[in-house]
Amino acid sequence: MSAATRILHSQQPFTFARGGQLPALELAYECWGELNAARSNAILIFTGLSPDAHAASSPENPEPGWWEFMLGPGKPLDSERFFVICVNSLGSCKGSTGPASLDPATGQPYRLRFPELSLEDIAAATQRAVSALGIEQLFAVVGPSMGGMTTLAWLQQNPAGARHMISISSAAHAEPFSIAIRSLQREMIVSDPAWQDGAYSDAQWPEHGMRMARKLGMISYRSAGEWRERFGRAPQAHYAPRLFGMNFAVESYLEAAAERFIGAFDPCCYLYLSRAMDRFDAAAGQASLSTALAPVRLESALILGVDSDVLFPAHQQQAIHHALQAQGVNSQLQVLSSVQGHDAFLVDSETFAHAVSDYLQNLTPQELPQK
Amino acid sequence: MSAATRILHSQQPFTFARGGQLPALELAYECWGELNAARSNAILIFTGLSPDAHAASSPENPEPGWWEFMLGPGKPLDSERFFVICVNSLGSCKGSTGPASLDPATGQPYRLRFPELSLEDIAAATQRAVSALGIEQLFAVVGPSMGGMTTLAWLQQNPAGARHMISISSAAHAEPFSIAIRSLQREMIVSDPAWQDGAYSDAQWPEHGMRMARKLGMISYRSAGEWRERFGRAPQAHYAPRLFGMNFAVESYLEAAAERFIGAFDPCCYLYLSRAMDRFDAAAGQASLSTALAPVRLESALILGVDSDVLFPAHQQQAIHHALQAQGVNSQLQVLSSVQGHDAFLVDSETFAHAVSDYLQNLTPQELPQK
Repeated sequence: MSAATRILHSQQPFTFARGGQLPALELAYECWGELNAARSNAILIFTGLSPDAHAASSPENPEPGWWEFMLGPGKPLDSERFFVICVNSLGSCKGSTGPASLDPATGQPYRLRFPELSLEDIAAATQRAVSALGIEQLFAVVGPSMGGMTTLAWLQQNPAGARHMISISSAAHAEPFSIAIRSLQREMIVSDPAWQDGAYSDAQWPEHGMRMARKLGMISYRSAGEWRERFGRAPQAHYAPRLFGMNFAVESYLEAAAERFIGAFDPCCYLYLSRAMDRFDAAAGQASLSTALAPVRLESALILGVDSDVLFPAHQQQAIHHALQAQGVNSQLQVLSSVQGHDAFLVDSETFAHAVSDYLQNLTPQELPQK
Repeated sequence: MSAATRILHSQQPFTFARGGQLPALELAYECWGELNAARSNAILIFTGLSPDAHAASSPENPEPGWWEFMLGPGKPLDSERFFVICVNSLGSCKGSTGPASLDPATGQPYRLRFPELSLEDIAAATQRAVSALGIEQLFAVVGPSMGGMTTLAWLQQNPAGARHMISISSAAHAEPFSIAIRSLQREMIVSDPAWQDGAYSDAQWPEHGMRMARKLGMISYRSAGEWRERFGRAPQAHYAPRLFGMNFAVESYLEAAAERFIGAFDPCCYLYLSRAMDRFDAAAGQASLSTALAPVRLESALILGVDSDVLFPAHQQQAIHHALQAQGVNSQLQVLSSVQGHDAFLVDSETFAHAVSDYLQNLTPQELPQK
């Protein structure tokens, strides 16, 4: 965990939306900038599936964060103007309570004894951190990828909780194509002999399942066009050729990406978060997404997507945009052109920095919070 | 094997393009229609990775074949006008010699002792069947998917071997995105504990690796749009819910598709054919694809693709078309609109039957072979 990470020890019982309860929660979070006297300049970031709370560097931790180009002094999420909060998701393994946390009743990790997780649970847990910081209404809530889904869940729980929203490469529900990919990723992990129905040890970790799941993840996060330009049919050089694979640069790229991930994320937490995304549907039980978002009191919204994103495709951005517009929210939709697919918000800094920066700058000057 | 399948016992040694030799080959093939006296009405089909030689029903075998709507009396590949041949690929396991065949030297399957396979080898082996049938020049050669790649290899070996070509949802080389998918499929199989470096038995078959590989195959063969229309977020009903999966209809669809495949295709043959596709590049060692196809003496070509195909995308169809045009071939390109992705040529019968039928009908009447 980052040196800048703080832990909220929330001692009230937490009841999960699909059943189950924990007596208390720990939530890891980081903050940038200062909360103004009116407490009106706070921005909350909900993360994608795997990032931790360390979204960007800070005086306490100069290590670059996962959204370094987006957040900091003078950056689009400007920590000289805004007080920015990023909370590690409930159910993750980066400091917040999740399946990898020790169950105080047994002294062992919860693993499969952890209650089934939903994105609504992540939203509700995160709200504890927002409340603990004394913030009644956020200036804006920002959610890329899974974080955008969680943002919708949070807005349904807190209809007047934020004045503005930035949804990035997200969706109001998982589509069957994305479910198929995540379902296969989960199958890769639970079929690794080391998975042991969740009873893996540090020495016998389902590394291979995680490696393959990450490779499939990368296949779905990037785009064919990017790889065509970047790798073409270049041979691979870094890894010894293995039977039936590793002839091409794209294969060693995937291997390297997987290697970076497999020791860094708990397999059980991964499964819980992955399933939570599949089961999320902001319109569940409602006539339409628009109806489901009717209570939401946003003043404006920016809905960003990427034309080459196959996991959270452009038409899903349109669906959020139209539902908000139908409820009178001043929503802007931008489907950005980028070859980097779903991951563009993490890597195509110029395209995304401009879009977020312009949106926040264009909110009328008297709306700009002052310290 | 189909009752209509014949076996060519070719007793000449066969030398593989990347090294290795076999003393003889067996090739399984089926034929429809009759060869005319001029031997000028033959059409050869090169198959995709997994189909056998039973492309369509016939009097000897009334079971529907894998391309039933395309081939038969009065169908686009009209067996009342044409003599149609389909050969099971060298390296496959449907009657032709491949890694699953018994090595006469040991009485055991070749498995990993089989020489490395290339699409050029499949083309050269198939030509033995064409020659054995007494055909000097084909009226047309037809190749969907991998079969289209093999068609290009075959044309490079036999520049005047066919007057016309129909290439369907194919490519002149594998792109990194497709390589990534196939590489991961191979990794799924060779990491199945039952794989045993190719020493699996019928009782201990790498079923799980094959199941996952087929699921990933289906994800790449179809399209997000098809599944959105077909499944949406419908719950699954056929399979008992399993932990971390099988909540949605799309998951049981994949499970059922995989179940049909896993016992029906030899894992080692699958690996050999998959790798052969990745390594194929019709332009290898040449300045361009156009240069590489310069010797080809086709009179005309029909290049078909599908707008929703992510595995053999439309721009790869354009590349074949442009290279042939540059060499003076009367080439037509049609990127068909179908929601069924790469598999459309197998399932979107109306779209594909029309395209193939129109092309063959429009070849001038005096060109139409008579019995």
